Amino acid sequence: MAKSKRHPSVKYVYQFGTARTEGDATQRELLGGKGANLAEMSRLKLPVPAGFTISTEVCTWYYDHDGEYPAELQTQIDAAVAAVEETMGGRFGDPSNPLLLSVRSGARASMPGMMDTVLNLGINDRIVAGLIERSGDPRFAYDVYRRFVQMYGDVVMGLRAEGRETDPFEVLLEKKKEARGVELDSELTADDLQELVAEFKALIRRRLKRRFPEDPAQQLQGAIGAVFESWNGDRAITYRELEGIPHDWGTAVNVQSMVYGNMGEDCATGVAFSRDPSTGEKSLYGEFLVNAQGEDVVAGIRTPEPLARLEEVQPRAYQQFGKICRQLERHYREMQDLEFTIQNGRLWMLQTRAGKRTTAAAVKIAVDMVKERLISRKEALKRVPPDDLDQLLHPIFDESAKRTVIGQGLPASPGAATGVVVFQPDEAEARKAEGVILVRLETSPEDIGGMDAAQGILTARGGKSSHAALVARGMGKCCVAGCESLAIDYGREQFTAGDRIVKKGDWISIDGTTGEVMLGQVPTREAPLLKALLGQSPGEEALELLRYFNTFMGWADRARKLAVRTNADTPHDSEMARVFGAEGIGLCRTEHMFFEGDRIDAVREMILAADEAGRRKALRKLKPMQRKDFEGIFKAMDGLPVTIRLLDPPLHEFLPHEAPQQREMARQMGVPAARVRRIIASLHEFNPMLGHRGCRLGITYPEIYEMQVEAIIEAALNVQKRGVRALPEIMIPLVGTVAELAQLKGMTDEVAARIMGRRKAEVPYLVGTMIEVPRAALVADQIAREAEFFSFGTNDLTQMTFGYSRDDAGKFLPHYVEQGILPADPFQSLDQEGTGKLLEIGTAEGRRTRKDLKVGICGEHGGDPSSVAFCHGVGLDYVSCSPFRVPIARLAAAQAALS
Amino acid sequence: MAKSKRHPSVKYVYQFGTARTEGDATQRELLGGKGANLAEMSRLKLPVPAGFTISTEVCTWYYDHDGEYPAELQTQIDAAVAAVEETMGGRFGDPSNPLLLSVRSGARASMPGMMDTVLNLGINDRIVAGLIERSGDPRFAYDVYRRFVQMYGDVVMGLRAEGRETDPFEVLLEKKKEARGVELDSELTADDLQELVAEFKALIRRRLKRRFPEDPAQQLQGAIGAVFESWNGDRAITYRELEGIPHDWGTAVNVQSMVYGNMGEDCATGVAFSRDPSTGEKSLYGEFLVNAQGEDVVAGIRTPEPLARLEEVQPRAYQQFGKICRQLERHYREMQDLEFTIQNGRLWMLQTRAGKRTTAAAVKIAVDMVKERLISRKEALKRVPPDDLDQLLHPIFDESAKRTVIGQGLPASPGAATGVVVFQPDEAEARKAEGVILVRLETSPEDIGGMDAAQGILTARGGKSSHAALVARGMGKCCVAGCESLAIDYGREQFTAGDRIVKKGDWISIDGTTGEVMLGQVPTREAPLLKALLGQSPGEEALELLRYFNTFMGWADRARKLAVRTNADTPHDSEMARVFGAEGIGLCRTEHMFFEGDRIDAVREMILAADEAGRRKALRKLKPMQRKDFEGIFKAMDGLPVTIRLLDPPLHEFLPHEAPQQREMARQMGVPAARVRRIIASLHEFNPMLGHRGCRLGITYPEIYEMQVEAIIEAALNVQKRGVRALPEIMIPLVGTVAELAQLKGMTDEVAARIMGRRKAEVPYLVGTMIEVPRAALVADQIAREAEFFSFGTNDLTQMTFGYSRDDAGKFLPHYVEQGILPADPFQSLDQEGTGKLLEIGTAEGRRTRKDLKVGICGEHGGDPSSVAFCHGVGLDYVSCSPFRVPIARLAAAQAALS
Repeated sequence: MAKSKRHPSVKYVYQFGTARTEGDATQRELLGGKGANLAEMSRLKLPVPAGFTISTEVCTWYYDHDGEYPAELQTQIDAAVAAVEETMGGRFGDPSNPLLLSVRSGARASMPGMMDTVLNLGINDRIVAGLIERSGDPRFAYDVYRRFVQMYGDVVMGLRAEGRETDPFEVLLEKKKEARGVELDSELTADDLQELVAEFKALIRRRLKRRFPEDPAQQLQGAIGAVFESWNGDRAITYRELEGIPHDWGTAVNVQSMVYGNMGEDCATGVAFSRDPSTGEKSLYGEFLVNAQGEDVVAGIRTPEPLARLEEVQPRAYQQFGKICRQLERHYREMQDLEFTIQNGRLWMLQTRAGKRTTAAAVKIAVDMVKERLISRKEALKRVPPDDLDQLLHPIFDESAKRTVIGQGLPASPGAATGVVVFQPDEAEARKAEGVILVRLETSPEDIGGMDAAQGILTARGGKSSHAALVARGMGKCCVAGCESLAIDYGREQFTAGDRIVKKGDWISIDGTTGEVMLGQVPTREAPLLKALLGQSPGEEALELLRYFNTFMGWADRARKLAVRTNADTPHDSEMARVFGAEGIGLCRTEHMFFEGDRIDAVREMILAADEAGRRKALRKLKPMQRKDFEGIFKAMDGLPVTIRLLDPPLHEFLPHEAPQQREMARQMGVPAARVRRIIASLHEFNPMLGHRGCRLGITYPEIYEMQVEAIIEAALNVQKRGVRALPEIMIPLVGTVAELAQLKGMTDEVAARIMGRRKAEVPYLVGTMIEVPRAALVADQIAREAEFFSFGTNDLTQMTFGYSRDDAGKFLPHYVEQGILPADPFQSLDQEGTGKLLEIGTAEGRRTRKDLKVGICGEHGGDPSSVAFCHGVGLDYVSCSPFRVPIARLAAAQAALS
Repeated sequence: MAKSKRHPSVKYVYQFGTARTEGDATQRELLGGKGANLAEMSRLKLPVPAGFTISTEVCTWYYDHDGEYPAELQTQIDAAVAAVEETMGGRFGDPSNPLLLSVRSGARASMPGMMDTVLNLGINDRIVAGLIERSGDPRFAYDVYRRFVQMYGDVVMGLRAEGRETDPFEVLLEKKKEARGVELDSELTADDLQELVAEFKALIRRRLKRRFPEDPAQQLQGAIGAVFESWNGDRAITYRELEGIPHDWGTAVNVQSMVYGNMGEDCATGVAFSRDPSTGEKSLYGEFLVNAQGEDVVAGIRTPEPLARLEEVQPRAYQQFGKICRQLERHYREMQDLEFTIQNGRLWMLQTRAGKRTTAAAVKIAVDMVKERLISRKEALKRVPPDDLDQLLHPIFDESAKRTVIGQGLPASPGAATGVVVFQPDEAEARKAEGVILVRLETSPEDIGGMDAAQGILTARGGKSSHAALVARGMGKCCVAGCESLAIDYGREQFTAGDRIVKKGDWISIDGTTGEVMLGQVPTREAPLLKALLGQSPGEEALELLRYFNTFMGWADRARKLAVRTNADTPHDSEMARVFGAEGIGLCRTEHMFFEGDRIDAVREMILAADEAGRRKALRKLKPMQRKDFEGIFKAMDGLPVTIRLLDPPLHEFLPHEAPQQREMARQMGVPAARVRRIIASLHEFNPMLGHRGCRLGITYPEIYEMQVEAIIEAALNVQKRGVRALPEIMIPLVGTVAELAQLKGMTDEVAARIMGRRKAEVPYLVGTMIEVPRAALVADQIAREAEFFSFGTNDLTQMTFGYSRDDAGKFLPHYVEQGILPADPFQSLDQEGTGKLLEIGTAEGRRTRKDLKVGICGEHGGDPSSVAFCHGVGLDYVSCSPFRVPIARLAAAQAALS
């Protein structure tokens, strides 16, 4: 190993399994996950093959010094190898008593398969003879040798398939089997394998113009370097970017004595979980193979046997392993994922780590471990990633089903959906019974009916924050958005995906959790917990899950400080959200009600009206319908606050975009088409996002908001008479100046007083505002003079704070996230430094004026765990999110309160 | 006077001209401008007819108490009347020795003609007899009586013309003259007038069912009430809204002894200025009429004589008046506007106040008064409203010319222009020599060439911040925007305004200072100062003005702390701005250069290119042209910093909007029209303001910015070789995160190092950013790690802070300003509470990271005086504005520094 610059003496190498174990489980940062756990098992006196870990600091050093190593490293490695030899009773590079080593990566966070590994290291033509002598098994020894040369040639020396070539080592192996007339590797003899070793080495020399290193020390040096290099391999970099693992963490290298599960029938190798990772059941769960190496268990050539069978084959080792599993679970107070090898009847532990599990299992294990007094409730709550709760509420595809993927979009709203393709929203409504997937270039508010009727929504344009995505998430409906490879042709009623043409009526399936678009009808499974929550004759398994879920969420509710409300526009969504634990409505968007059925006609009549009188006439038709909606919502939310936002979108959103629909509308309403066109032209905006909408409408057309306030107050009084406790919170959108709010609050109070006076009844209500324009946050002290509550509309606030149009940002935002210019899509996860600063300023300034100001958030971020944590930190009173994300927000709020 | 609620004893009435004067000039708020100055003259022992002022507090009280008065008021009025009687030697209401009074309004700020006045009060049938006896002139006495009844009947009793009716008093007067066969009022005899008094009273009784009050005390009470009521008359309210005068200030009421300029040939009345209000010349300037009342001077029936003639007519009074004028000017240290009356040879001063003047006069007077040691330079600088300097630089219409106004738009860019109507920009260029007015629905960047060629620009849509307005102001060119009453028909090449049809080629004139659109060729006058500044053979008068202007602006430059730069995109504009005193360029918009001549073809080739190589090929064509522009600008700004903003607008702005032009472009470039359409469709944005522009383009298409940086650095090196000191400051637009700036600054430094290395020469340059996205201000501490300067782009920052699209806000913004929801259009005058807070945060946070950070502002606000004052307060280093506003900004900056 090339020595270079001097460096003050630092410990770089940590032994385990030797006479002195030098690390422990707390040293994950220094030793990586694998190394730290090997050290910990060694501390627990468990049978770990001796070895040592080269720390992550060496990796950092290596990259800081152009691929050189600290001067002291080689001495420390030499000493560690000596200690390993001492413990294992063999000698590295000694033909008479050889010790073979494995060299494995091991980063702080698990990066499975992303970095390199070299096994069976320390063998050459002389040493293999010693191995034969000691094992008495030439075939085993040459198999080990053959595997080593192949792996080293690939991983360390870089001889691999180029272009469309097949792996050249595999080519030679296949040739050999063909020549011998056998099918399986295991049918090759020791002689065959010996020949292969020579052929592999010749191949390396021919292709790389280098000799295969025979010197074990040189082999070790090469393997260590290869592991460090693999930290910055393309695969590893991509993986880290996807998983958000910092590039400067570096990997450790674990050098460990080889043990063999393939030295005969008294050998075995296997993997196990200390509990069932699918269900969470408390029972050892795993698989093993007799006379096999670890890689064979996953390779799938032989079918592994369930772990219980090991008791028959290796009763002593099985007992010991079971005991160790229980011990490790108790020690780590966490479900373990373990790897073991039995060499000649002797058990060796190769790995232990926290086991991955389904969400259902995670909930059950967390709750069970509290009952077992292994962990506290606080710890239990931290064990389940909030986002994972989604899995429990959405249908999923049958895992065994075949998928013919024809497109990849953005996973915009989770779930699994299958149905026949339709392109027009009204057709989706007409064919609802068949089960349809609505396929659109993009959706707009006009399409709500069709979206509601569809099983799932697939769009070619728009991101995770597009209209389609937002609405679908609100509805808890599966959506794949921005699948740009689809060429949709509305005229021919078909789309092409690559060279496939999919016509109207063809079956497709979409996976809203992965973004995949599949041909045909892929079978789905309903989410059992959802059925249980909704009381739809669930099975016993689902009821059990529901009990665990309720226990777990109960703890979360007791732990959290933030209230969790929901964004819901219909009585149905409100009821659903209440089942999911919503404590009120944080955002009821009244405009969605404007699109339903023939209401849109009245809305259009209002827009076309020549004057205020005409508008009032049309609004009188709308009022009873709005009132009825509100009554339903108040009923569903009996006793809980309901925040109703007055009309927000610009009026042109209620008019058809395309000429034929405009003509149709003119015909239907009995007005000249030219008039419709003229009005649509006059309403056109260059930047509708920053246009004539929100309270700006309320001020220029006061009659609209007046009608809405009347409908709210009347609805509240109506249900109150029937014993329902209605708590309306009237929210004025897009306020930027206190004068806007003052004027509209004045109107609201006047209307409310008039109606309550006439009916001789009172209903409590609040008037507040959405803080979604940056200016509103900046002058929140003034606005709080009028506002009885604030609700941060972080969708629009993010748009304006960044100057990003959500509808257009697809042109650069993915690029920004990819290049690391932004850590995440700010429409998904709240930008804490910029938009978040406005939340802080707005909350602090608002409460400076009005100490008891109720402050919440009702953007999409209300259901994003890291954003929820931020809201907790800022001291908000509540978050509000779509119904299906309510449980996520409840748990995220609990975790935030506990951390 | 109705006494009502008790009130602790407060002084409400202030005497002047009596034995004790109770107010002075400092009490403007309490006594109104008129009252305070009457008191002040009285203090100076000048001959002021005795009287008293009822304070503005009474007005406030009156409105706070539903039209009642404080209890003590009547007693105080009675005492004051007694004192006036004592001084003037007559008695109010005494037929044997009558004293008549005038009752006039007088607010803190002058509201000429907006409130009511009653003269000759205190007369009735018995008193008129006494007046005849004491004056010996029955005709005079009945004329006074007739005038009083008419005025009181109108103002106090409210008898005025209804609908299309002629004033009923005037009808009776006309009838009388007809009956007597005379032409002029003055030809009526005492008897005629006596009859008229009776007829007037009968008319009042018939129409109002009330008697005319004969009791002088009752008359006084009614007149005082009428003046208070007139404070909230429609006219007054409208005026206050226009002038920004608070509604709660209230008016004072001045009650004063009448003096008469119409009691014979030894009487006269006149108005005067202590200096010439047109030129500022130091000589008494005014007009008078012998034997006349004040209102006759302005009525225009008799032509007044120049004041100098008074010396012949009334030598003693003239001497006295001249002395008083000089005394008052010295006393107030300000040019005075005075009113006087000579009654039987005795001079009475009725009013003095600061005189209105032209801007040229204001500058001259301010400079002269410093020379005369009347005022300090500091005071001189405060005497000229910065916005008024505009008058000196723009052509104006000949005041005597007849105007046929056919439309009223927004005064979007000052000046006067006349020309033939054209609708197409290319036609404007072709017919430039004729002088054209470019008439468009709205303008877009494609139209720049035509706008430049036109004398003036008239648009039917868009506000003062529309594209047309912004560009026109930048060019110093007259523009009337948003003249919505024009119906433009591009197809027929005509527009209609009301029932007038104006065709292409017809002459029109537009006034950018008033917003008027006029038929025909209204003669204009060039601004003499502009000619002098540009050295275009000005006359002696212009050179004199230039000397005064330079002296005055020199003082401003020494006083101010803020530097003043200009927004200029061409060498010509840069030179012009330097003449106006710009100290560098604060914003050079490189995209404007992209539209000139055939450059647009290369730009379009770049946009249509399939890949980076194709884009680079097109950019190579653009580079020499950009470089040449920069060389010209660096030369014009030799030794001064030049801030160059890299490409900002979204690419679709460079492509034609309409199908025929798109086809033409495709033909010209030899590509299929469908391709052009497809690319335009793919570039379409829902909210281009928040879209793929600014540094977002620079990051996704780095080759564009690279070309621009190359052109800048090469240009700087080229001119440097020729002895020009180039100081480029490269500005990255629309930065929202430090990562964007870091990446683009890295690119800039690399490109610069490469070129300087190749040329073996150095040129100093800075890299900084525009702060125009709210987030950038919020994370300015991070951004300042990379930025060497900040320039607040307050146009876009205002759009995003408010969430107002400048192009769409016309739908509600005028309404907002009218209703007082906003104090002013935030695109005109910086919103200090909201957008301004971001300026404060951004500056403070930026300087926290980088102490010496250079910070400026380059939005339109850089030329708005109140915004400049705010920038001074925030501690910016400079403001930058369009060339023609540079002098305004210099003066505004000086005033800010002095206040």
